[in-house]
Amino acid sequence: MKATILNIGDELLIGQTLNTNAQWMSQKLNEVGVDVLHHISLSDDKEDIISCLKNALQSSHLIFITGGLGPTSDDITKHVLYSFFGGSLIFNEAVYKNIESIYKLRQREVSEDVKSMCYVPDNCLVIENTLGTAPGMLFKQDNKMVVSMPGVPYEMKGMMENYVIPYLKKSCALPVIIHSNILTAGVGETVLSERLKEFEQHKDPRIKLAYLPNVGKVRLRLTIKGENQKELEDVIASAKLEVIHAVGEFIYGYDDDILERQIGQLLLEKNLQLGLAESCTGGYLSHLMTSIPGSSAYFKGSIISYANEVKEAILGVKEDTLKHYGAVSEETVSQMIKGAIDKLGVDVAVAISGVAGPSGGTSEKPVGTVIIGVGDRNHIIVKRMTFTNNRERNIQLSGVLGMVILRKFLLGQVIE
Amino acid sequence: MKATILNIGDELLIGQTLNTNAQWMSQKLNEVGVDVLHHISLSDDKEDIISCLKNALQSSHLIFITGGLGPTSDDITKHVLYSFFGGSLIFNEAVYKNIESIYKLRQREVSEDVKSMCYVPDNCLVIENTLGTAPGMLFKQDNKMVVSMPGVPYEMKGMMENYVIPYLKKSCALPVIIHSNILTAGVGETVLSERLKEFEQHKDPRIKLAYLPNVGKVRLRLTIKGENQKELEDVIASAKLEVIHAVGEFIYGYDDDILERQIGQLLLEKNLQLGLAESCTGGYLSHLMTSIPGSSAYFKGSIISYANEVKEAILGVKEDTLKHYGAVSEETVSQMIKGAIDKLGVDVAVAISGVAGPSGGTSEKPVGTVIIGVGDRNHIIVKRMTFTNNRERNIQLSGVLGMVILRKFLLGQVIE
Repeated sequence: MKATILNIGDELLIGQTLNTNAQWMSQKLNEVGVDVLHHISLSDDKEDIISCLKNALQSSHLIFITGGLGPTSDDITKHVLYSFFGGSLIFNEAVYKNIESIYKLRQREVSEDVKSMCYVPDNCLVIENTLGTAPGMLFKQDNKMVVSMPGVPYEMKGMMENYVIPYLKKSCALPVIIHSNILTAGVGETVLSERLKEFEQHKDPRIKLAYLPNVGKVRLRLTIKGENQKELEDVIASAKLEVIHAVGEFIYGYDDDILERQIGQLLLEKNLQLGLAESCTGGYLSHLMTSIPGSSAYFKGSIISYANEVKEAILGVKEDTLKHYGAVSEETVSQMIKGAIDKLGVDVAVAISGVAGPSGGTSEKPVGTVIIGVGDRNHIIVKRMTFTNNRERNIQLSGVLGMVILRKFLLGQVIE
Repeated sequence: MKATILNIGDELLIGQTLNTNAQWMSQKLNEVGVDVLHHISLSDDKEDIISCLKNALQSSHLIFITGGLGPTSDDITKHVLYSFFGGSLIFNEAVYKNIESIYKLRQREVSEDVKSMCYVPDNCLVIENTLGTAPGMLFKQDNKMVVSMPGVPYEMKGMMENYVIPYLKKSCALPVIIHSNILTAGVGETVLSERLKEFEQHKDPRIKLAYLPNVGKVRLRLTIKGENQKELEDVIASAKLEVIHAVGEFIYGYDDDILERQIGQLLLEKNLQLGLAESCTGGYLSHLMTSIPGSSAYFKGSIISYANEVKEAILGVKEDTLKHYGAVSEETVSQMIKGAIDKLGVDVAVAISGVAGPSGGTSEKPVGTVIIGVGDRNHIIVKRMTFTNNRERNIQLSGVLGMVILRKFLLGQVIE
């Protein structure tokens, strides 16, 4: 099954809006075994839409269109499509009811402009929009399928997940495709690929292994395509076990797991309260940990001690230590951990101090030098790391590595 | 001048990589008066590249291609292009020197694969890659131009900024186009557009005004296109003055200004040290303020008091206040400000407490209720706001609004 994605909207072509729809749709289509041939962004222009659609129908079985379904005069996708397929518009009561209920919530009247969205082509299946007003449309002709959805990402996603993907699975002869994601952190692609060399050499040749890196983390994605669901599931399950065997200590979760949430779960299980002392990360790690709903159950707070006076006054880092070893030192970070445990009244604390850059580096402590530590009342571990010369990346990496070290500490693993 | 952007790479079509190149290139091309007709993502397939290129040459004067220039066997763009235009490959000494110097830095030998990148078509202008190894290419035929660049965003950006855009300006009859960006925060599009109604009615019809919103901020972009640079500059300058007159109190900067940096400048000018007390934002505002290099000159630190015990123990919020009014109250936030000034030893403090969600709301204080305050030793101002029911958005909005209130306080403006 071949597909083309057409994203309609001038805002894409002037660079005002980043086209995240095409990527997301490609991911979802790939997951069910549809190959995407082209993403095409085009403007709200009748002739251009028709010409791109004709081209796409020559190479693809499935065309997915986003955008141009709103109530304003530049939204022409619906008109282009029903006339292209030779139909006409009819009033749809269900669409009207949906729009009316949304406008009631907003305490607004349904205007004539908006009412125009209730007229839908008589030659398509109407796709309900549970998250917005404009309905989607599904046209079929000569074994080909054209699906038109709103450009608003979450409305499009709702339609894809609730209607389009299930419809494809039901009505098209799609191959069985199975993915398994193994999530690692605190390790680079090079080390992972060395560890996985043997697996790669001996694995079932139908299995593809992809390395998907993202600031301090690498997602390992196993994919297999075929026909026999049960057999493929068995193959991928045993491949997953081999990967776990090879790189187990770097794995923090699978599929949709989130490192921040995994750590929260560990803290909850162990009934431990967390506190942080941040210097160079300036609150970024606290922000990560509190991005998870319900984090107040295990996260009590942080001291962001950007200035040395704050390290002294609140965290109790000794003046002598700062003078002798400097703020970016194992000694200071150890005292920051103790201070955080004490002042925040927590069981476990992580502390970070470093030179985020772009300036402030010395030959001894160049930009990118970061000291990260973790501890409880009995035991403190502190590590020195060297990252890049990019401030933003250093802050992000320090945050992620702080979580990696914390996770290992909570699990009683060796921190190298 | 019409353009088509072709982004080559399987990673785009399987949704592994988000196509940020197309957006960035569109912005840059629009700025110099080039209209982009299509973005097309396609795979590293010879026939498909040729077919898309032929199509693009029919509708566009300028074709910009990214991707497929590396040393591996799936990188075929160069071979497709030189044979399409009827040329052959020759060894280029300058390209070799560049690659050699990069490999010397990496302490690696130039392999035969990599050497293959030094062979460039004899029928194009070679574009130097100052940030990587693969050179770019510029082909000309029948008044049309095809530019091929690497897919790595920063290498492509370097070529566009240093070579391609200047070349277009010099060799194409581009219109003069002038942009002026006016940056606002803490106000919605609706209020702005009401305030700018008169301006929109009476402005020079050649001027276009775009509203570009982004979490708590709206960028107002004035654009004018024409021929006489001096005259257009005058027109846009006087339009800018009118916009400033209409919405002045919401403006924090112009063009490339950053709110975080503008506030830092104000603190430096007034010689004031800043501290923060965050609850529901969990460190996000601290992260924003410390994202600016050199922020240690005016930012001393923060107390992230997620738990009430921390509000009491470190910030000195009274137990009675928390019991009577709750953590999300004007009274608590006032005491958080006082505590932050006192404990962090700063001149000015911002404090935030709220219900970020998705749970934790009550009928009196629904999810999205946020109290934000600012103060110094003499004067404290606290505001109650109601945002959305989305946790991530509430945290982001609270951070931006915290900066807006701080900025007004520093400027002695009325905070409504």
